[in-house]
Amino acid sequence: MSQKTTYHNEIGAEKVDFTLHATIEALCSDILNVAGNDAKSKGFSADKLMESGRSWVLSRMSVELDRMPAQNELYTIDTWVYENTRVLSTRNFEMIDSLGKIFGRAVSQWCIIDFKTRMPVALDEYADLFEGYIYNAPAPCDPPRKVRGIEPQYHRQHEVRYSDIDFNRHVNTMRYIRMMLNTLPIDYLTDNRPMRLDIHFAKECHLGESLTIGYEQRDNISLFEIRNNDGVVACTAAIEWK
Amino acid sequence: MSQKTTYHNEIGAEKVDFTLHATIEALCSDILNVAGNDAKSKGFSADKLMESGRSWVLSRMSVELDRMPAQNELYTIDTWVYENTRVLSTRNFEMIDSLGKIFGRAVSQWCIIDFKTRMPVALDEYADLFEGYIYNAPAPCDPPRKVRGIEPQYHRQHEVRYSDIDFNRHVNTMRYIRMMLNTLPIDYLTDNRPMRLDIHFAKECHLGESLTIGYEQRDNISLFEIRNNDGVVACTAAIEWK
Repeated sequence: MSQKTTYHNEIGAEKVDFTLHATIEALCSDILNVAGNDAKSKGFSADKLMESGRSWVLSRMSVELDRMPAQNELYTIDTWVYENTRVLSTRNFEMIDSLGKIFGRAVSQWCIIDFKTRMPVALDEYADLFEGYIYNAPAPCDPPRKVRGIEPQYHRQHEVRYSDIDFNRHVNTMRYIRMMLNTLPIDYLTDNRPMRLDIHFAKECHLGESLTIGYEQRDNISLFEIRNNDGVVACTAAIEWK
Repeated sequence: MSQKTTYHNEIGAEKVDFTLHATIEALCSDILNVAGNDAKSKGFSADKLMESGRSWVLSRMSVELDRMPAQNELYTIDTWVYENTRVLSTRNFEMIDSLGKIFGRAVSQWCIIDFKTRMPVALDEYADLFEGYIYNAPAPCDPPRKVRGIEPQYHRQHEVRYSDIDFNRHVNTMRYIRMMLNTLPIDYLTDNRPMRLDIHFAKECHLGESLTIGYEQRDNISLFEIRNNDGVVACTAAIEWK
């Protein structure tokens, strides 16, 4: 019988900004680390897939944060694999503070890519691995919404460097989020406002590429698109500030 | 009776590069987190100092790493406060793998700065706080050496963004190290060579400043200087590759 699995987290000093509250980036990083650790404990981690020249790649994610926890706060993340469609595996998350209140929710959708073709593979090949680990609790929030029609009012460049690259040898998911947040007026990030992030990863970027981050502010929504060396969209995102 | 204090660490997925070994940045970050946690447990943390408008600032550090541990490795850091001079407090570290072998050593020298004057204060004011916590075990490696006479052969720019700023509202120590490492030819970082870092922090940098990272390769030593908006040296470092 499958169920949610609970992981314990702490807002260490390396996770806060100068307001002494966790950054959006650090909380997203905690979510993704929990995804990795849970997949590992259940036998379908990226390490395991790498033995056959494949790996998990995050395709889309939605994250809702009602507040940013303060430095030293303890909290837990509950996670469960929700469903697998043809090429997308959905993993859900709830972030719960020490008083038992849910303050964060996330839905992530992952592909398994083959290193040779760099294309997603059909998940039915892995049905046995997931056997007994799918849990159909209600989704904690809306799945990732489409992000379209961005008309950037502001651009900046980012050259991909060593620290941007992850074990899959492409730009780390978290770095796109960092690039976007670093483009915002700082008040959005330090006012501790409830927010929802929708992010789509369309194309891998690599060492040495010069990326262009485009930013549009449309009422209370911050929209982003990151284009690669060739002007192709690599990542789009929307942050709705509540 | 004072002694070394031991902290447990793990090389999580977020600490490795694509060689699946810990990055220099991640190991330095572990060292500094241990410094913060140990100061906290002993009652002289940055949090505590902030109550009177002061904080710890890292002035110089030397780090020797014989190897970069692999993903999922467990290791411990032993730390102790070694001595306080007029304005510098020295904290030492040993990094020990699961077989009990010391694979890393570090010496860090810290000031307490006053937020109003941004100047270091005399540490004898804090003698009571440190009472019983000074431990004169031999230094694990040479203290930070002077880094002088750098003649950069290569420059690049870095604009200080939100994610670069720490709780002291200036550029995070770890970011200078990242900027330097990101300037190196990548082979230095992925060959898992033993190395020694000497780094000096001369001047605080702030949000929006455009920093210039200068890099000189002199035989087996990589030398760096980071200058602020006004061309003033903010940070210098040398990495010796063994």
